[in-house]
Amino acid sequence: MKIWQKNIDVDSFVESFTVGKDREMDMHLAAADVLGSLAHTRMLNSIGLMSDDDLEAVQKELKNIYKEVEEGKFQIEDSVEDVHSQVEMMLTQRIGDAGKKIHSGRSRNDQVLVDLKLYFRTEIQNIFRNTETLFLELIKLSEQYKHVLMPGYTHLQIAMPSSFGLWFGAYAESLVDDLHLLKAAWAVCNKNPLGSAAGYGSSFPLNRTMTTQLLGFDDLNYNVVYAQMGRGKTERILAQAMSSVAATLAKFAMDVTLFINQNFGFISFPAHLTTGSSIMPHKKNPDVFELIRSRCNKIQALPNEIAMMTTNLPVGYHRDLQLLKENLFPAFKSLNECLEIATFMLENIEVKENILDDPKYDYLFSVEVVNNEVLKGVPFREAYRKIGLDIEAGTFKPLKEVNHTHEGSIGNLCNDQIQRMFEEVKASFNFEKVEKALQDLLK
Amino acid sequence: MKIWQKNIDVDSFVESFTVGKDREMDMHLAAADVLGSLAHTRMLNSIGLMSDDDLEAVQKELKNIYKEVEEGKFQIEDSVEDVHSQVEMMLTQRIGDAGKKIHSGRSRNDQVLVDLKLYFRTEIQNIFRNTETLFLELIKLSEQYKHVLMPGYTHLQIAMPSSFGLWFGAYAESLVDDLHLLKAAWAVCNKNPLGSAAGYGSSFPLNRTMTTQLLGFDDLNYNVVYAQMGRGKTERILAQAMSSVAATLAKFAMDVTLFINQNFGFISFPAHLTTGSSIMPHKKNPDVFELIRSRCNKIQALPNEIAMMTTNLPVGYHRDLQLLKENLFPAFKSLNECLEIATFMLENIEVKENILDDPKYDYLFSVEVVNNEVLKGVPFREAYRKIGLDIEAGTFKPLKEVNHTHEGSIGNLCNDQIQRMFEEVKASFNFEKVEKALQDLLK
Amino acid sequence: MKIWQKNIDVDSFVESFTVGKDREMDMHLAAADVLGSLAHTRMLNSIGLMSDDDLEAVQKELKNIYKEVEEGKFQIEDSVEDVHSQVEMMLTQRIGDAGKKIHSGRSRNDQVLVDLKLYFRTEIQNIFRNTETLFLELIKLSEQYKHVLMPGYTHLQIAMPSSFGLWFGAYAESLVDDLHLLKAAWAVCNKNPLGSAAGYGSSFPLNRTMTTQLLGFDDLNYNVVYAQMGRGKTERILAQAMSSVAATLAKFAMDVTLFINQNFGFISFPAHLTTGSSIMPHKKNPDVFELIRSRCNKIQALPNEIAMMTTNLPVGYHRDLQLLKENLFPAFKSLNECLEIATFMLENIEVKENILDDPKYDYLFSVEVVNNEVLKGVPFREAYRKIGLDIEAGTFKPLKEVNHTHEGSIGNLCNDQIQRMFEEVKASFNFEKVEKALQDLLK
Amino acid sequence: MKIWQKNIDVDSFVESFTVGKDREMDMHLAAADVLGSLAHTRMLNSIGLMSDDDLEAVQKELKNIYKEVEEGKFQIEDSVEDVHSQVEMMLTQRIGDAGKKIHSGRSRNDQVLVDLKLYFRTEIQNIFRNTETLFLELIKLSEQYKHVLMPGYTHLQIAMPSSFGLWFGAYAESLVDDLHLLKAAWAVCNKNPLGSAAGYGSSFPLNRTMTTQLLGFDDLNYNVVYAQMGRGKTERILAQAMSSVAATLAKFAMDVTLFINQNFGFISFPAHLTTGSSIMPHKKNPDVFELIRSRCNKIQALPNEIAMMTTNLPVGYHRDLQLLKENLFPAFKSLNECLEIATFMLENIEVKENILDDPKYDYLFSVEVVNNEVLKGVPFREAYRKIGLDIEAGTFKPLKEVNHTHEGSIGNLCNDQIQRMFEEVKASFNFEKVEKALQDLLK
Repeated sequence: MKIWQKNIDVDSFVESFTVGKDREMDMHLAAADVLGSLAHTRMLNSIGLMSDDDLEAVQKELKNIYKEVEEGKFQIEDSVEDVHSQVEMMLTQRIGDAGKKIHSGRSRNDQVLVDLKLYFRTEIQNIFRNTETLFLELIKLSEQYKHVLMPGYTHLQIAMPSSFGLWFGAYAESLVDDLHLLKAAWAVCNKNPLGSAAGYGSSFPLNRTMTTQLLGFDDLNYNVVYAQMGRGKTERILAQAMSSVAATLAKFAMDVTLFINQNFGFISFPAHLTTGSSIMPHKKNPDVFELIRSRCNKIQALPNEIAMMTTNLPVGYHRDLQLLKENLFPAFKSLNECLEIATFMLENIEVKENILDDPKYDYLFSVEVVNNEVLKGVPFREAYRKIGLDIEAGTFKPLKEVNHTHEGSIGNLCNDQIQRMFEEVKASFNFEKVEKALQDLLK
Repeated sequence: MKIWQKNIDVDSFVESFTVGKDREMDMHLAAADVLGSLAHTRMLNSIGLMSDDDLEAVQKELKNIYKEVEEGKFQIEDSVEDVHSQVEMMLTQRIGDAGKKIHSGRSRNDQVLVDLKLYFRTEIQNIFRNTETLFLELIKLSEQYKHVLMPGYTHLQIAMPSSFGLWFGAYAESLVDDLHLLKAAWAVCNKNPLGSAAGYGSSFPLNRTMTTQLLGFDDLNYNVVYAQMGRGKTERILAQAMSSVAATLAKFAMDVTLFINQNFGFISFPAHLTTGSSIMPHKKNPDVFELIRSRCNKIQALPNEIAMMTTNLPVGYHRDLQLLKENLFPAFKSLNECLEIATFMLENIEVKENILDDPKYDYLFSVEVVNNEVLKGVPFREAYRKIGLDIEAGTFKPLKEVNHTHEGSIGNLCNDQIQRMFEEVKASFNFEKVEKALQDLLK
Repeated sequence: MKIWQKNIDVDSFVESFTVGKDREMDMHLAAADVLGSLAHTRMLNSIGLMSDDDLEAVQKELKNIYKEVEEGKFQIEDSVEDVHSQVEMMLTQRIGDAGKKIHSGRSRNDQVLVDLKLYFRTEIQNIFRNTETLFLELIKLSEQYKHVLMPGYTHLQIAMPSSFGLWFGAYAESLVDDLHLLKAAWAVCNKNPLGSAAGYGSSFPLNRTMTTQLLGFDDLNYNVVYAQMGRGKTERILAQAMSSVAATLAKFAMDVTLFINQNFGFISFPAHLTTGSSIMPHKKNPDVFELIRSRCNKIQALPNEIAMMTTNLPVGYHRDLQLLKENLFPAFKSLNECLEIATFMLENIEVKENILDDPKYDYLFSVEVVNNEVLKGVPFREAYRKIGLDIEAGTFKPLKEVNHTHEGSIGNLCNDQIQRMFEEVKASFNFEKVEKALQDLLK
Repeated sequence: MKIWQKNIDVDSFVESFTVGKDREMDMHLAAADVLGSLAHTRMLNSIGLMSDDDLEAVQKELKNIYKEVEEGKFQIEDSVEDVHSQVEMMLTQRIGDAGKKIHSGRSRNDQVLVDLKLYFRTEIQNIFRNTETLFLELIKLSEQYKHVLMPGYTHLQIAMPSSFGLWFGAYAESLVDDLHLLKAAWAVCNKNPLGSAAGYGSSFPLNRTMTTQLLGFDDLNYNVVYAQMGRGKTERILAQAMSSVAATLAKFAMDVTLFINQNFGFISFPAHLTTGSSIMPHKKNPDVFELIRSRCNKIQALPNEIAMMTTNLPVGYHRDLQLLKENLFPAFKSLNECLEIATFMLENIEVKENILDDPKYDYLFSVEVVNNEVLKGVPFREAYRKIGLDIEAGTFKPLKEVNHTHEGSIGNLCNDQIQRMFEEVKASFNFEKVEKALQDLLK
């Protein structure tokens, strides 16, 4: 049953083409759809468009459906076009005519818009939480291995002493910056489009401020034309935020595949977490990290895909937007899995000590040694010339000790400051406010 | 003179290939480079690595060079590789050996990093200001034409009554959301990488907190490996923010080319702002908006370009990053020009009144009329059926009046709320803090 | 059962992450996998690595499995990692030890490579055939409506007379050029990588020329390192070819949504092929074309996605490549459906006659009229001035006739030449050679 | 002087925005513009629209201008909008009124179209030639170092023996496949759009077949609407072909940066072709290859940029297309320089012999040894078990010899076959036909 389908028979070929994967994708929106209707009907009642009795029946049954969604019992039937029709149909079957009234003062367009924003908020929270877990693991490893040195490369050439403390900590700090983008996506998602109807508003005296508060949104998408215009744009911004986390992960995965390579040999994982061969016992294929890299690079391409699908579309709704679900929804799962499995792998990482004992890393310390001479009072040019001569003469034997003390250096990682920055970004989301509002709505 | 060039002659073919457009691009970094050195040398003095006399000479001459940059007198000579060498050379020529000392405790890498961040801050401010001007123009037009109705489209099909108040206001509100991304880019840019040396820190007892305060940064890029890793990433995030503003502009430009088309005919511009033909007097080619659209779509592709150039590069500096200047720097100019000329064009836009008098727009009002009946107490199905019959019978003659009162609708645009949101995002940048710090540094 | 899994237990979380959607994707490769083994085993026999008896048993059973694939009876069991293991397991279950021998002289890597190439050939043929059908429909419509004029736009401004003959024919010709890219993809796919083993060849005396002929390939991927390097590259090139067809379709869909819009009103479709509303009887939402546009723009983003996932990977196999299946395989189905439904819709398109009678299109003919005067001998400037004055005076009344005679113009569409070009590209594929070889192999 | 500018003064701000970089870009089109006019005027004469005297004067002077272009003396004056106006103006200044007549039967649109196609043909030839030079260098190196073994990696893990012969040869063969895409771009470019006027044809009795032959095009863009539609599409297809060559180069550059890294140490370059440091004598920064990688990855992003700028534009010319010049034209130079400098660097590459003597590469040979046992008649499982036990016992001492004989393997590189494939693709371009036609035209 399609709601827009009146007496005209639509060819089944066309139907199957237009419905596409919508039923599968819409399953993700079920909880959000019920929440939106809980708020909308309370507002309808407040402006006299739904009786107290109807409201009571509707609220009670919507909460039942919400529970079914949470318990995994909710299904979209094959004969039903989408999640919105399914919820409406269930409601009407269970409580009769009152169920049909929930659509007053609302269009399918703003219903989808608010469902998406509610769903995106949930997914942003999921990404945040998984990012936090990975962040804490990286900080832990950074502290744990802060005394283990490794070579630092520039141009992929051996350059300066580095440490595992620096390496792990760098990716932790990278995640903090990524969260600024996620916060921007959250700000864009956390505004209420409900009440914009088909993108041009309604002659009903809706109270959009009320639904905004009930759903825990920070603000409204005021302008109803803009509320509609947010579709596609919200998705692109969210994908951009995801791509930033993904870029950090992909880069880390690249490092892992390099450092586990036998020519480097800096890290390893237990045999059961890599794939090998009994006649090539040295071989420890880092499949998990290769797949993290691949998935994350795919996510890096996502904002561009969304931009390509939405650019040059004039103002107003276009059916094109439906397909953005298929890009974005699976990407949530993919990114979250990457964050989880990266954390899991890191819990099992093994780090090689004494890497720098290998003479091939001697020259790593040449800049160190020059600087140390300078700190002792030797003029730079003289110190530099002396070390140069030592190297030429083959008598350069550095101590292979590093005494870096400034902020963020090997000897002073400032992981506490990095954690402080993390907490500041975290606080700016104010997830509690949203959770509180939704709990109240479901009470 | 290349600083890294010791006694080895580098083939001129290779030199020209590797220098590329760096001299041209680096001109944009001149002011930032001087600011960075002003802060760095004060810090060197504070930790005993530069004498008071040297500091005084260096500070005075750097401020002179800054003035030359501001007056457009600064040049990078052909024999000099980049802006950093040029400033250092000028300093040494003018004040002797003290000039050479400014490079202590600093590598070319972190010098470029801090220059880029300072420069990006300036460009973000430019984009912000031009966005603000366009925003205010859109709000002004929205208020000015709030009573002028136009058709609203869904699926590009005539759907519901809209208004010029809604149309202009929608794009104003769109810019507010874009600024959330610009704010994220600002947060990422506004952290100090100076002191990270070649990406692995330094054995000098640098005081990175001091340079952070002197340069007005909000925080440090603590981890020195991350400070280096920020290159490429910062550019991508900034490009993502720019792409969001650009997407809003490109969409608006698409609307303009459609609405100025004679089949729509909703808007026009004075003849001298379009291009025409004396034998096709109807023709008013909206070249400016076509070029805004094209430029902005190019900017939409920019984050992807940067991602493609940086993905899968392992940790540490790579020369690849140099080329990001050539993508990003011209995009600042391009976007700013688009914002300026869009504002200029909008100051001259002419809006057609009474569009909806045309009978082809009668059906626009069918939903209105049904809803109004409902509000008078007629059951929805009955109202719907009645209007359907009127339409079928050809007796449907709507009043063509719209009484929308809810937040963000035709009759209640809430432009004051949209401006309030704009001001909130604006305040979060805290541009004043940065400006104050730089003024103090140059005092 | 994983083939590489010896005695090491792999964590199920890791397993599920690494297998991903491979079972689902690999179903597409089943037929190709059997074909590859048919050829490989005949070659093994020819070089003495498989006995005649084993060969006979293997060939017979592989052909049975092929039949099961064709009849839709083939399944990849949950306990089996991929299609290759499934085929091998079935074979071994049915014919015993001989089944295990098919893997001699072959690695999983080159087996996947050849499967992909065989599968891509099939999909290229599918795309070709659907493109051909659409091409013929467009040519048919171009001929059918060659006398029906419509406005031609430049800058989306009414500019010159055009015709439906030109409009339909333009997209037909566009498909011809797209096929040049598809031909390039075919040339790249139609080379044999089998025998490259894990990307470094084999010490077995393989006869790669023989498998090349048996599988109907045009040539070999000679260099075994290159054979492996072709993975990812082949996919990207094929996606580029698909993106070209998709771009043509998306542009056509954009035109349709514009021309079916009521402000243009040039075309329509029967009610059951659009979606509408009983109280907005004018509304004919072109959902099918909006979804074609959206799908095709997604396909336009595909080559970039593949490039992002493969760029900067050094030589040799990486597990990243596995995920390209998930991008590309569903895109085949999506593009083919778009081609089919576009053809279906075009079979039902309705074209408005006499569009140009509307006086708003009068100026369309101004250039015509000037040119006609010139052809009669009036100097251009004089003719131009005269028409300009007529227009100014409001006395310009063009005949609204078009006499264009040159190649490709309204009066001389040259659809026969466009068909000739189509046939030339078609012939260059030489599909028959491939089909003949595969028939022989399955005999 | 703008040709479309009649008596209306256009604001200089708008003018500067709309002209953009057109004068700079158009310099690339000068030769093509003259060639197009040479053909067009001969055709005009043949259909009686230009007198014999005018033709003679025009042809003579156009050939003079062509010579000036070739000698680098041609300039576009600041007061002139573009190359087309410049040529027309010079002609008129030199030969009077006859110069003005060359624009009969031609619009600015088809003039640009044909100029672009002619220019693209030239650039394709340049890319082809530079690719050929690089190809030959790679083949030469492959032959030169065919006996030098190196490790082969899968998953970036040491896997199997490879050789420099294979490594260099693989990239040579990769270029052959890239040329299939370049050939497709050539096929699309090598069709004549001249005579399509503003995209809707002309009432003049043009002979488009004649200009097609004169300009050496293979065929016509018949349909005039399609001829216009080719703009943007041609650019995208050409960029796709370039991106394929670029992808090969970027991957090779990635390998170089890895193999020159000290942990691998497989290759090196003379000191003057890398950048180093006197106190880090081991450091040989491969800047040239990092910049090749970066430039080529930028080119890989180019097709997407063009798609983003052209997607969803409805049929007919849009000013957006002008900006594609700025993307594409500099990319020709950039790619050609990359091809040239890569060849230059390869002429100087130094390859390390005896890499595999290092015991860390012992296990490389385990598969070899198993296979050799099998070839001697030992059952696979037995051979496999034996080698496994040897490895476990630490008694595995492989001979480190490789006897691969099949097509494309270490011992049988088939470089002659790869060259044969190269020659076949080369012949399919038929550059001679084009060159012959242009020589005749300029005679």
